[in-house]
Amino acid sequence: MRLSSDWYGKGNVRLTKVVRRGALHDLYEFCVKIILSGEFSSCYHTGDNSSLVATDTMKNTVYALADKHEFHSPEQFGQILTKHFIANNKHISSARAEIAETRWARLATANGPHEHAFQIAGSGVRTAHVVTTQEGRVETSGGISGLQVLKTTKSGFVGFQRDEYTTLPDVTDRIFATTVDASWTYIGPTDYNASYVGAVEELLRVFGEHDSLAVQQTIYAMGEAMLARDPALGEVKLTMPNQHRIPFNLEPLGRKNSNSIFVTTSEPFGLIHGTISRD
Amino acid sequence: MRLSSDWYGKGNVRLTKVVRRGALHDLYEFCVKIILSGEFSSCYHTGDNSSLVATDTMKNTVYALADKHEFHSPEQFGQILTKHFIANNKHISSARAEIAETRWARLATANGPHEHAFQIAGSGVRTAHVVTTQEGRVETSGGISGLQVLKTTKSGFVGFQRDEYTTLPDVTDRIFATTVDASWTYIGPTDYNASYVGAVEELLRVFGEHDSLAVQQTIYAMGEAMLARDPALGEVKLTMPNQHRIPFNLEPLGRKNSNSIFVTTSEPFGLIHGTISRD
Amino acid sequence: MRLSSDWYGKGNVRLTKVVRRGALHDLYEFCVKIILSGEFSSCYHTGDNSSLVATDTMKNTVYALADKHEFHSPEQFGQILTKHFIANNKHISSARAEIAETRWARLATANGPHEHAFQIAGSGVRTAHVVTTQEGRVETSGGISGLQVLKTTKSGFVGFQRDEYTTLPDVTDRIFATTVDASWTYIGPTDYNASYVGAVEELLRVFGEHDSLAVQQTIYAMGEAMLARDPALGEVKLTMPNQHRIPFNLEPLGRKNSNSIFVTTSEPFGLIHGTISRD
Amino acid sequence: MRLSSDWYGKGNVRLTKVVRRGALHDLYEFCVKIILSGEFSSCYHTGDNSSLVATDTMKNTVYALADKHEFHSPEQFGQILTKHFIANNKHISSARAEIAETRWARLATANGPHEHAFQIAGSGVRTAHVVTTQEGRVETSGGISGLQVLKTTKSGFVGFQRDEYTTLPDVTDRIFATTVDASWTYIGPTDYNASYVGAVEELLRVFGEHDSLAVQQTIYAMGEAMLARDPALGEVKLTMPNQHRIPFNLEPLGRKNSNSIFVTTSEPFGLIHGTISRD
Repeated sequence: MRLSSDWYGKGNVRLTKVVRRGALHDLYEFCVKIILSGEFSSCYHTGDNSSLVATDTMKNTVYALADKHEFHSPEQFGQILTKHFIANNKHISSARAEIAETRWARLATANGPHEHAFQIAGSGVRTAHVVTTQEGRVETSGGISGLQVLKTTKSGFVGFQRDEYTTLPDVTDRIFATTVDASWTYIGPTDYNASYVGAVEELLRVFGEHDSLAVQQTIYAMGEAMLARDPALGEVKLTMPNQHRIPFNLEPLGRKNSNSIFVTTSEPFGLIHGTISRD
Repeated sequence: MRLSSDWYGKGNVRLTKVVRRGALHDLYEFCVKIILSGEFSSCYHTGDNSSLVATDTMKNTVYALADKHEFHSPEQFGQILTKHFIANNKHISSARAEIAETRWARLATANGPHEHAFQIAGSGVRTAHVVTTQEGRVETSGGISGLQVLKTTKSGFVGFQRDEYTTLPDVTDRIFATTVDASWTYIGPTDYNASYVGAVEELLRVFGEHDSLAVQQTIYAMGEAMLARDPALGEVKLTMPNQHRIPFNLEPLGRKNSNSIFVTTSEPFGLIHGTISRD
Repeated sequence: MRLSSDWYGKGNVRLTKVVRRGALHDLYEFCVKIILSGEFSSCYHTGDNSSLVATDTMKNTVYALADKHEFHSPEQFGQILTKHFIANNKHISSARAEIAETRWARLATANGPHEHAFQIAGSGVRTAHVVTTQEGRVETSGGISGLQVLKTTKSGFVGFQRDEYTTLPDVTDRIFATTVDASWTYIGPTDYNASYVGAVEELLRVFGEHDSLAVQQTIYAMGEAMLARDPALGEVKLTMPNQHRIPFNLEPLGRKNSNSIFVTTSEPFGLIHGTISRD
Repeated sequence: MRLSSDWYGKGNVRLTKVVRRGALHDLYEFCVKIILSGEFSSCYHTGDNSSLVATDTMKNTVYALADKHEFHSPEQFGQILTKHFIANNKHISSARAEIAETRWARLATANGPHEHAFQIAGSGVRTAHVVTTQEGRVETSGGISGLQVLKTTKSGFVGFQRDEYTTLPDVTDRIFATTVDASWTYIGPTDYNASYVGAVEELLRVFGEHDSLAVQQTIYAMGEAMLARDPALGEVKLTMPNQHRIPFNLEPLGRKNSNSIFVTTSEPFGLIHGTISRD
């Protein structure tokens, strides 16, 4: 037998950082995962741990580097973290940081945004993944996961393949509800926060405006628009469940459903993925 | 042996209703629970089901009445539902509807709010509970559950009791993070949507402005302000976990934590409740 | 305005205790909630915390008393905890402990039960709730929450009320799937572990044997048998969702469903409650 | 721009199948995901859905084939499903089925296993993944996900790397708690149920017996034993979080912790992966 693949790390290291600029406070809340790959086989084979960075040390490092360094985005913090592990460990071939940021927004007040009080801005968490290798390659991606959206019209699904087990009728006006899981690579220098805001704005804009013939088509349109807007984005991955709203059959109850009353369902769901790249 | 208490009903009946006012669509997404109490003992004792409204019928009734009636709030729909079961079943002593509404908000566009596309507005669901009795009493309450807020300052906790197991130091400047679970009774006629918006505005305003000496004190201030603003509210119940952000001890790492770096925790949590009533 | 009701405490204090009896180890894993009621109004009104046991102290107390005292059941530990808070605080009128115990079972080995290795025994957690008052009253209850069971026959539902919104047909042979939430009061001295094992055995036995005409009838039969078996039990509360398995309509697919193929659903669900007491 | 990758399918198709062999009933409860890859680009680009098997049809197919075919394991059912989609659609390059089986076990009775009543057997779900390609390749794997185990001794962690951020002390006797996520490929014909039972027995046996110097070492020992026992297994993947039990510091409370009282934690967690293959 042999060890053909291995990695290890620390998950759910949860950090809250407050930066006080006078009365105005900035808030960062990250949930961090660190994964290291490299030469750790003696640990698997004999329990010789001398090459292991303890996962407890990884946790400490998250808090120490969060204190030591200034950063303004999860992408920057992921770069700081992964570069630290690579720089200090020649036997580590790659370090990966996956960060999910809670989307805190300032409370609105009569005098504008609150200086130190926040609420959750909407559904979904902001994500950033960074991989740094011993050879010095740094791959950074951003994204949003869990963004819930719904449109009540401008969505249909007709002309699909029919076989002996097909019962779904063609429908020209249905509800389109989904939870967007989007990520994109960065291929050039950028303000990560500006790119994030632009990417989310663009995907929401297209979701609302698109006259959808299939979830697939909307996915492509969203990704295409995101790439067209921001030259720093290399490719966009979009995974979207089709969270069906099923028209409730009111006829046995003596009523007619005028495309108004639906059963909200979580499962089963369609699940559609597309990766849209530059030529 | 005897049956000393019983009730039954249907949970998680999930309804999406679209109201089309020309191109402008209104969206209601409710998760409904119906609970009936009354004389059902023969079913428990002998399996004689003749007095039972099947829970499947309760489900159908949710969809049928959602189609039949116009309503603009979960409170109104809860009243419609409970009155239906009471009016049609003399042996039912009370009918309870618990509704959780998903907080969909229109997408923002360059031309204002989108006519038919929505996203989740923030954390938390709107709630409405209605109990109607055979004698004609109708009790209606509203609320919000799961509203996540955080402030980075203006919160302290000092002067509490100390015993042999107390290790917590006095702290004058801590993070205050919580997930508000608020509900209130209605004691007079009102526009339920306006009352809801006002109640949430008020609790957010006080949360942000209050100079908190204890979670308990902030709870009282929030409830007091909500009652002061809206005469339709009878009493306010507030339950708030204290979702601790623990200062990370950086000293073993050769650094000093200037009240900036915290461990985000979900458990254990303090849990504080207060009911604030009118005199 | 006035404070008409209040309580506070600490939730999700998670304790693992290992008792080493030579090579044989006992394992207790509890998730504890402590709730105190009493005279704490100054804290709500003025932020004067002098009457407050800090929730952090409650947490410490859980770990300290788990170390100080020997116990063999969550009921005993709940009594130890609540008596401590009552004995040390005259202004506390009642202390409540809610404990959920993870059901660890010893691994089976060729030589019998393992001395120090465990796995989860099945679905559900064991529960114990204790309330102790300043006057010296101690109320103890036990239970199991989340126990998943299913039977493929010996369950029907016929003869229920029909109205304009009823579409459910009478069915004489259906799947009965549920997640039992059971609790019982203790009215006399007992070995809590023996009573727990007996109560769970009895409810499983009746679930399997009962020829069910309604979930309600099965609930009554289960509670009746539990009380009949163990004189230490005062009353039994049973809450059971009806987690429907819906026959899939195969006819449009050119097949006939011989009561064999079902859609597994989580929602909506029926929800049935009965409290069975001694005469 | 271009579509560089795509797939789609249906998730959480939940099936309950009852096979009646006289009074003895067999129960299968599967949660199925179907993912198809192939030539669907016209749908993404123009909304031409003519090449699409509707995800609703995939759902119907799960129920129809569950009725049409006899099977005794999720692996067999995954093969039936994927071969169906490949055989009927030349433009589909690969079909993937991911099945999670709820682990129902017969109730114990005085007369042996119950004929038709079941409860959950323990933590974790059985998994089976099958990929079938248009060229006729069939890859089948089995596994268990979410299997919770804990040992109170025979686990240590010493001699790991130390740097400026390391504070973890060497420990020779700690609690080892984890939730095993195991999967294995099948490289030869086998009775999938016997292989599954054997693989789970073996990993539990090694977990209990191993004198662990690191989670990594235990993972390797588990995988090695699983491969040694069953020649039908090609390689084993094991991912195991280290769900820490942190000794509670009782010294400020005037007590000494004799390796007995621990804080149960869910996060942060170590996360260790190893793939063990045959030479």
